[in-house]
Amino acid sequence: MKILITSGGTTEKIDQVRAITNHSSGRLGKAIAETFLKHGHDICLVTTSAAEKPTSHPKLSIVLISNAQELADKLESLVPEYDCIIHAMAVADYTPLYMTSLDEVEQTHPVSQLLENRNTEAKISSDKDVQVLFLKRTPKIISLVKKWNPNIKLIGFKLLVGVSKEELLKVARQSLLKNKADCILANDLLDINSSQHKAYLVSAQDVFQAGTKEEIAHLIYEKAVQND
Amino acid sequence: MKILITSGGTTEKIDQVRAITNHSSGRLGKAIAETFLKHGHDICLVTTSAAEKPTSHPKLSIVLISNAQELADKLESLVPEYDCIIHAMAVADYTPLYMTSLDEVEQTHPVSQLLENRNTEAKISSDKDVQVLFLKRTPKIISLVKKWNPNIKLIGFKLLVGVSKEELLKVARQSLLKNKADCILANDLLDINSSQHKAYLVSAQDVFQAGTKEEIAHLIYEKAVQND
Repeated sequence: MKILITSGGTTEKIDQVRAITNHSSGRLGKAIAETFLKHGHDICLVTTSAAEKPTSHPKLSIVLISNAQELADKLESLVPEYDCIIHAMAVADYTPLYMTSLDEVEQTHPVSQLLENRNTEAKISSDKDVQVLFLKRTPKIISLVKKWNPNIKLIGFKLLVGVSKEELLKVARQSLLKNKADCILANDLLDINSSQHKAYLVSAQDVFQAGTKEEIAHLIYEKAVQND
Repeated sequence: MKILITSGGTTEKIDQVRAITNHSSGRLGKAIAETFLKHGHDICLVTTSAAEKPTSHPKLSIVLISNAQELADKLESLVPEYDCIIHAMAVADYTPLYMTSLDEVEQTHPVSQLLENRNTEAKISSDKDVQVLFLKRTPKIISLVKKWNPNIKLIGFKLLVGVSKEELLKVARQSLLKNKADCILANDLLDINSSQHKAYLVSAQDVFQAGTKEEIAHLIYEKAVQND
């Protein structure tokens, strides 16, 4: 099978030196890619320069992106070519539009006018006590995958922080329906550390639990090759 | 001599999964630390988990911090113990205070009231098209070093983007005076890539030019041990 995997966290630039980043090491995407490679599948890993990556392999190609828009553009062309996508990347929900002083915000009515402005400086000056950063929502990539390729198997990810198991499963089931996903891997940041990674793989029919990144990779592998 | 070196870039959390980061690999701080270690000096490297670091060495201790406030707290206790500080870390100028919807900003008069608010969610919801992030200035650490230890030799850094050599030297000389620094290493992001790193080491008496990270490390070493 031809498998597309995304991993790592995107970086949305504020200016040439500052950026908003999403917390993600890339380790889980790496473990998933290695599991599929071991079973002889063709892998394209879409990731970032900072993410951990598998060692090179004849059946592995790596595509580097940095922000959510680049990811959307790249996946739009790749998704139609693949049998399955495992979308593990932590994609920024918001990207910077404009950064300005509190004074400019106080003096502009309506404030929404400022959404049309852009910074022209390469490095935004740091002489004000307070700065105000306006951000806009990035494209919700998981919701576009089945539009780009209705036949692809879609395994999505949902990361929450400090919620109950019930809430985690509820949010995963909502994401299944909304994004026409085949499974959602739901996990809680508080259940992830260097030795464990608790997660639930949720489909319309069942829920499987994993306790480590290797177990998650194995569960996802089983789901991806099922009925294929 | 006892040398304190800072390197890498700070991370200022927006919530448990998002952060504002400063672009820095830690490679220059690593090269500087290695140069001093080669000459038998005692090094304390204050850096981040993501930064590149020298391999372990009996005369090297490493202290990890993540944000500007942690760095300020750590340096306040370390600076009095050292003969020289080389402050190469890219420290965030601003740290997040509060993130909210455009609606709340439009409806609050004066907007500055919002600076008293704090987010209580572990992961800020992403259901609005626009978010507004208020940021406040972090402590200007380089300006505090000589207050903490008037006898320490201070080598500061100034990174600008896309300016002339004249502008770079002017800003470096302003920083020398304002922060009572002994030298400022002035560089332009556009002159830095994997093979070159153009920079000027500016003191009250002279200006030296370097073309690589190793040359920068050597210039800084010479200045640090001068008259000692």
